[in-house]
Amino acid sequence: MFKPHLNANEEGHLVIGGVSAVDLAERFGTPLYVMDEQRIRENYQRFYQAFSKRWDNARVWYAYKANSNMAICKLLWDEGCGAEVSSICELKIALKIGVPGEDIIFNGNYKTVPELELAIKNGALINVDNLQELKVINDLSEKIGKEARIGFRVNPDVKAPTHPHIATGLRESKFGFDVESGKALEAYQIASEMERVKVEAIHSHIGSQILDPKPFGEQAEKMMNLVAQIRDEVGVEIGIVDMGGGLGIPYKPDEEALSPDDMAEETTSTMKKIIQEKDLSKPTLVLEPGRSIVADAGMLLGRVGYTKEREKTTDWVAIDAGMNALIRPVLYDAYHHILAANKMNEKTSETYNVAGPLCESGDYLGKERKLPKVERGDLLAVLDVGAYGLAMSSQHTAQPRPAMVLVNSGDVEIVRRREECKDLTRLDKVPEWLE
Amino acid sequence: MFKPHLNANEEGHLVIGGVSAVDLAERFGTPLYVMDEQRIRENYQRFYQAFSKRWDNARVWYAYKANSNMAICKLLWDEGCGAEVSSICELKIALKIGVPGEDIIFNGNYKTVPELELAIKNGALINVDNLQELKVINDLSEKIGKEARIGFRVNPDVKAPTHPHIATGLRESKFGFDVESGKALEAYQIASEMERVKVEAIHSHIGSQILDPKPFGEQAEKMMNLVAQIRDEVGVEIGIVDMGGGLGIPYKPDEEALSPDDMAEETTSTMKKIIQEKDLSKPTLVLEPGRSIVADAGMLLGRVGYTKEREKTTDWVAIDAGMNALIRPVLYDAYHHILAANKMNEKTSETYNVAGPLCESGDYLGKERKLPKVERGDLLAVLDVGAYGLAMSSQHTAQPRPAMVLVNSGDVEIVRRREECKDLTRLDKVPEWLE
Ligand SMILES: Cc1ncc(COP(=O)(O)O)c(C=O)c1O
Ligand SMILES: Cc1ncc(COP(=O)(O)O)c(C=O)c1O
Repeated sequence: MFKPHLNANEEGHLVIGGVSAVDLAERFGTPLYVMDEQRIRENYQRFYQAFSKRWDNARVWYAYKANSNMAICKLLWDEGCGAEVSSICELKIALKIGVPGEDIIFNGNYKTVPELELAIKNGALINVDNLQELKVINDLSEKIGKEARIGFRVNPDVKAPTHPHIATGLRESKFGFDVESGKALEAYQIASEMERVKVEAIHSHIGSQILDPKPFGEQAEKMMNLVAQIRDEVGVEIGIVDMGGGLGIPYKPDEEALSPDDMAEETTSTMKKIIQEKDLSKPTLVLEPGRSIVADAGMLLGRVGYTKEREKTTDWVAIDAGMNALIRPVLYDAYHHILAANKMNEKTSETYNVAGPLCESGDYLGKERKLPKVERGDLLAVLDVGAYGLAMSSQHTAQPRPAMVLVNSGDVEIVRRREECKDLTRLDKVPEWLE
Repeated sequence: MFKPHLNANEEGHLVIGGVSAVDLAERFGTPLYVMDEQRIRENYQRFYQAFSKRWDNARVWYAYKANSNMAICKLLWDEGCGAEVSSICELKIALKIGVPGEDIIFNGNYKTVPELELAIKNGALINVDNLQELKVINDLSEKIGKEARIGFRVNPDVKAPTHPHIATGLRESKFGFDVESGKALEAYQIASEMERVKVEAIHSHIGSQILDPKPFGEQAEKMMNLVAQIRDEVGVEIGIVDMGGGLGIPYKPDEEALSPDDMAEETTSTMKKIIQEKDLSKPTLVLEPGRSIVADAGMLLGRVGYTKEREKTTDWVAIDAGMNALIRPVLYDAYHHILAANKMNEKTSETYNVAGPLCESGDYLGKERKLPKVERGDLLAVLDVGAYGLAMSSQHTAQPRPAMVLVNSGDVEIVRRREECKDLTRLDKVPEWLE
């Protein structure tokens, strides 16, 4: 099988975490998100080891935005993995499951006052996006009576070979300070003269779903050169270098993976080279992976309702999960491999477009997919949906969002209950004059 | 002003429904959806009148998917407007606010058994998407002991000049029965021989955001010709012709509107022509508009947090609403006009990209927008978001979804409360073994 943690049992049913997908769908209904606990732990350990065996002081802080389900965040914290958060609710989740402020990084191009207050109070590291924010932070620190730990988000202008929506390191992007024009350096100068902020870090994130090591090397080089410049020209030693996330996964069967080892080798060897050249002291290296930790640990199960033959074009099969449950195919033109979970022994002799249940043409999970002949009642599994899946889901067309279960060595637990209609309307209120 | 129902007060504040946007933002916080009750009622009446003055028996059934907030649906029902629904939760909303089954149409390419049961029990008209569904319906009718009222969704293969995601009338689309190949006619033949279904209607929907009358004429022609063919070859009189939704609105200031009158004229004159030619009896004409009823009645207010100058590229302004609150710009490349709600008297001298608060480059509301010079604390209004706005919103990056208020002649009422962090995690559960 193209995913090492998946297999099929004798009945030809897809198995994840020791549990048959067919049983899961029967027991918990569809559409259903399934997350494999062991796979998440392994992904984290593989990533963490890759960096920590090359760098004494490497820290991996999981990007909550990929999947902020409490159980997922908790089990990663259980492994010692901190939190990269970008909203007050993500920050509250981290604090609630017991991650201390020192293991939390707060990122984002729009941080509100309540967000910043909570981050400062808890001693989280704040990667500052712009000078207005810096001033707000300085003022809040004063008010709160606690120094704010900060870094700056900088834009190294590295072109990441990925979808434009998720390429974030270019000069024109909305994020952070431009390095080349000197804006980033200037920010460090300004911060170094401020009373209430403690400048500790530098941060960049060049994009997501990157499968080529080179951009990470480029990023490392530009970052470390800036670190040297900051020491030389501002007189500040940067103790934390935060390289963001970005490691991709192979979504397509023929796609080559980039291993955490290869990414780590590229990043750390470049950093070491420049440390030596510039006689820098060795900073803590921080990574913020999201996708590479959780994406391949998740699948979305959907029940086939209808199939439709088309005379001159591709046949359709419709399942009960669509762009409401997983928006990545239509939004990023993303490929997610699809399997017939109850027909793993059958030849993939047919070609289908796989549709969801919504009334728009953008509502599909995959186009031109090889599958066995499927019929009403069959079960399809959409792979690699553990990141940016349920996290980006909507209630489009008043479709309740799927449940999520966590599987591990044959055990299953609901980690997010399925929505019911009343969950969708509970915040609605009809004014008296309309009653 | 380019929208007739908006204006500015003496202080230069944008006014909607007799209320200042600046006051609304202060009172209810941002991001905030604001819906104008009177505008919705007017839009509906204008649409309804356009058809009913040309057709004795015209019915307008609002497409809930555009915005299924209970107050919005209720006020439309108050006007006598029925419901076009496509999920069990939409159906339940319609029933809950008092719409009787006979004023409800159930559409969709994937209808579940519980959905169909509820629709049949309540006597809603079901537009059947495929033959498998027809069989399910016939069996359920038997079981329930009540005849199902049905039509068929057919695909007239009309090319609608709109975004491909929302063009739905082409042969290759996932929807309905192809007309040209005879599949649609065959479906009527099969249904006419079934015991438990009552064939009443024919349905098509060629797409959304259409600003040219011609495709509606083409659709009408193909539909009426099929109605004649069904009478002649199957011996069934179609009493209800449902032309779907699709009327667009001018999102851009220089875009020309298509009036309901021009749409109605094109549709009804074509229908009349063929009725005469083929000596057909006059059916009830049903329309299912969504966008044209609610889109321009809604605005999204966002507070400016940060502005960012870029040396060689466009400057940025960031507000607290992004693709989480409104996904249309990044998903459909949709234009939504943006105004500085507290600076309506100032010249639009600057050009900005308008960003949201999320960590991806796709998170923007508009690119290259003319605005006055804006600064932290200013208020931006994103126009025409009443349809497919909050309805398609997500909690991406654990951002709570905005509140929605309804304004009318100076009155304001919250019709959807703002989400809090605990609303986002209330369905999550951490397994014991992780506690
Ligand atoms: C600042 C930041 N860090 C980390 C991540 C996680 O990236 P990935 O999931 O590609 O590892 C993102 C994703 O958008 C991000 O914006
Ligand atoms: C079957 C059907 N009817 C009505 C509508 C409403 O369309 P609009 O909002 O363009 O009027 C839609 C939109 O997708 C639809 O699919």
